Amino acid sequence: MRLSELAQRVGGSVEGDGDRELDGVATLARAGAAQLSFFVNRRYRRQLTDTRAGAVVLAPDDRELFAGPRLIADNPYLAFARAAALLHPLPVPAPGVDPSARIHADARLGRNVQVQARAIIEAGVHVGDGAQIGAGCYLGEGVVVGAGSRLAPRVTLLAGTQLGARCLIHPGAVLGADGFGLANDRGVWVKVPQLGRVVVGDDVEIGANTTIDRGALDDTLIGNGVKLDNLIQVAHGVRIGDHTAIAACVGISGSTVIGRHCVIGGGVGFVGHLEICDGVTVTGMSMVAQSITRPGVYSGIPAEEARRWRRNIGRFHQLDELARRLLRLERTSKDPHE
Amino acid sequence: MRLSELAQRVGGSVEGDGDRELDGVATLARAGAAQLSFFVNRRYRRQLTDTRAGAVVLAPDDRELFAGPRLIADNPYLAFARAAALLHPLPVPAPGVDPSARIHADARLGRNVQVQARAIIEAGVHVGDGAQIGAGCYLGEGVVVGAGSRLAPRVTLLAGTQLGARCLIHPGAVLGADGFGLANDRGVWVKVPQLGRVVVGDDVEIGANTTIDRGALDDTLIGNGVKLDNLIQVAHGVRIGDHTAIAACVGISGSTVIGRHCVIGGGVGFVGHLEICDGVTVTGMSMVAQSITRPGVYSGIPAEEARRWRRNIGRFHQLDELARRLLRLERTSKDPHE
Amino acid sequence: MRLSELAQRVGGSVEGDGDRELDGVATLARAGAAQLSFFVNRRYRRQLTDTRAGAVVLAPDDRELFAGPRLIADNPYLAFARAAALLHPLPVPAPGVDPSARIHADARLGRNVQVQARAIIEAGVHVGDGAQIGAGCYLGEGVVVGAGSRLAPRVTLLAGTQLGARCLIHPGAVLGADGFGLANDRGVWVKVPQLGRVVVGDDVEIGANTTIDRGALDDTLIGNGVKLDNLIQVAHGVRIGDHTAIAACVGISGSTVIGRHCVIGGGVGFVGHLEICDGVTVTGMSMVAQSITRPGVYSGIPAEEARRWRRNIGRFHQLDELARRLLRLERTSKDPHE
Repeated sequence: MRLSELAQRVGGSVEGDGDRELDGVATLARAGAAQLSFFVNRRYRRQLTDTRAGAVVLAPDDRELFAGPRLIADNPYLAFARAAALLHPLPVPAPGVDPSARIHADARLGRNVQVQARAIIEAGVHVGDGAQIGAGCYLGEGVVVGAGSRLAPRVTLLAGTQLGARCLIHPGAVLGADGFGLANDRGVWVKVPQLGRVVVGDDVEIGANTTIDRGALDDTLIGNGVKLDNLIQVAHGVRIGDHTAIAACVGISGSTVIGRHCVIGGGVGFVGHLEICDGVTVTGMSMVAQSITRPGVYSGIPAEEARRWRRNIGRFHQLDELARRLLRLERTSKDPHE
Repeated sequence: MRLSELAQRVGGSVEGDGDRELDGVATLARAGAAQLSFFVNRRYRRQLTDTRAGAVVLAPDDRELFAGPRLIADNPYLAFARAAALLHPLPVPAPGVDPSARIHADARLGRNVQVQARAIIEAGVHVGDGAQIGAGCYLGEGVVVGAGSRLAPRVTLLAGTQLGARCLIHPGAVLGADGFGLANDRGVWVKVPQLGRVVVGDDVEIGANTTIDRGALDDTLIGNGVKLDNLIQVAHGVRIGDHTAIAACVGISGSTVIGRHCVIGGGVGFVGHLEICDGVTVTGMSMVAQSITRPGVYSGIPAEEARRWRRNIGRFHQLDELARRLLRLERTSKDPHE
Repeated sequence: MRLSELAQRVGGSVEGDGDRELDGVATLARAGAAQLSFFVNRRYRRQLTDTRAGAVVLAPDDRELFAGPRLIADNPYLAFARAAALLHPLPVPAPGVDPSARIHADARLGRNVQVQARAIIEAGVHVGDGAQIGAGCYLGEGVVVGAGSRLAPRVTLLAGTQLGARCLIHPGAVLGADGFGLANDRGVWVKVPQLGRVVVGDDVEIGANTTIDRGALDDTLIGNGVKLDNLIQVAHGVRIGDHTAIAACVGISGSTVIGRHCVIGGGVGFVGHLEICDGVTVTGMSMVAQSITRPGVYSGIPAEEARRWRRNIGRFHQLDELARRLLRLERTSKDPHE
């Protein structure tokens, strides 16, 4: 594909040779003459200077940093993402049901569905048009998979789980296991039946070995466009708003509600029954122990406004010295007459 | 079922119309006239006022807060849990072995066992009466599953693992993988053979994608009535006492012993070779770095008594200000004659 | 096997009865007259006194602590590991392909390969000589498994993943899922195609339910002799140097490079795009937020040199008291004339 055509399709303008033919993408360090690369992080400026890439995507402010063919875009990473998707299109799954898949007579499959080897599809399941069910997946009773969704091999959707359209679920993810609901009877735990479902919107991505529990009474809800990384725990009754992205190893306790357009860093923990408003960013490994009512950036254990946390944690690194100075001050300020 | 019958079976007294017919449970916000709800958290008092639930379970002290039919119980959440189990009984698994399951000739199945599609059961396995083995489970050589235990789809029990009676194991759980035992030979890691087993008591629940490693020499032991949430790591040689509950994303390092009736919050980490006595609560995201010999509540990184930790973490949030005040004091207290 | 023969094969010298016959290993507390035990941790000295072990491995300095037959070695744990491997040899997997395994016509299997029940091997896969593919494993297109590698049941290697020789992968591990690559288009996340692979060296062990994402553009690289425990997240583009060991529940963000011979404790988090030099130890539950350029031990949130962190965290535990003393000092030092 020529650079000029690519620019037109991803939204950007060309500077330099727009006829440059490109057949793939690569990092600045490895790209060759037929490959497109991108530049957004100034720490890689040296690599930009040395690159042999056929063309580079850059922001308008960086246009002078590269002399070769370039694609200028206000959001270069977004333009690059789109270009990469055009140059490396995902193969369309060939429709068809593998003979080793086991599909209950009461399940309904849409048109152009692909079901891979050894998948198990129970009664009452509905798989939408063009969906792909990976090898060895398990879809329990009454599961719904929306049109165009793709399940990688070995995904587990337990009874009643609903997925919207165009979702992508990675291996080992478990949706719809029982929430951790326990009442205590003089020291012995009694299980609280978990009667809700997991309901997932459209365009959601769920990472490998991530777990989303069914609601105890109401459903656990994952909004449209939510992106969950690997090894995340979403407890019963949690609700995650549209277009929120959550990095790996996060744990969200029961009934906590996270707003829309939030960004949660890796390893963050949320206690239960909180409300986090829209537009909140939480930096990695923070513990969110209270509801958050104002958009902004939060950090720390427990989390506070990131600006304050940075100042406090900076002082923590001086703490031993500060304590010594306090003790010295106490000594020198002792009244000699006492 | 009538409210009066329910009250009699779960332990509680009726106030108002005991003939109210109930066919299910729901939250205060969603319950209808034939549904039972419950009230334990005062923050939901508004929902109690507005509820259209057919009946509500409340504590004696809250009996005046709701005028409709009510079930009064000293532990309302426990009474509700039992009522929910009565109104929404788990289906008894229909006995039978799916023809696609693969069961070694030397395995023994008890009476009324259900084995679902594509399960693999190796030599020497013993499955107790009434147990359920989910689709695609793997039971390695010599595994024992006690009577009435239920394995959800895709559970992995490696060779020698023993489960007691009435356990419930969720998808993706792995019991009996090798512990992380390594000796170092001038920079190169040498594997230490992992020769122990995982031995689990009765009435244990184990969450999705939780991992419990086999012991290096002695067995890893999980006591009766223990409840483990999702994505927990239990290392080799750990012992967990009866009726201890552990929330998601906890990591327990090798050979640590946790007592009975402990409650461990989400994301907590334990270093290895510790002894935690009975009756300890650890709040979420704490790091337990030393043995604990007195029951109580512990918090922090590293964990200390929660009361002390709350005071210290409160001061941490003032740390930058405290440091500034210290510096100011140093300046003003300088002897002008120096 | 006689103690003297064992000593000769693992490297060590015998004191006492070298003709003692040994047929296994056990802990000091449980070993009997035909079992070998070891002593490295002084806290178990009482057990050494009481042991009925047939022989004990000890360091030269501890040789006086036990009167029975003993194997003296400079690194007793290493000698014990080797002795355990000799006394409890792993069974060599019997070659053969289970008829229920599904192997694509274009896959190539080496000599003496074992493929267990229900494994799925896609086109272009190459399995090296003597490798073992566990029950229900999934090997996507073009996967390479080196000679002598062993995959436990239910391992997922997605398309293009390469494993070296003599690797050991535990159940639930997922290699090659998409990295978490997202660009933001006015609030909506756009997926960045993940085009790299996962490439793993020789003699690598990967724990249960650990996830290693494929690179976005360049490959994710795991060096020779690396040991990864359970429930670890390795993001796209991470590189881990040879002979580095990482304990459970660690999360490593994208493009971070960890050097050789590092030791990472449980629950540690790394932010992205860092460089950690060779020979770094990070203690458990630390957050590494900056690159590390000097070998040594690091701790804390965020991580600093362990020695400094220990002093600061010690002061943290006095923080409330220190703050009170500061306030008292402020009061007493107020100039009465002000």
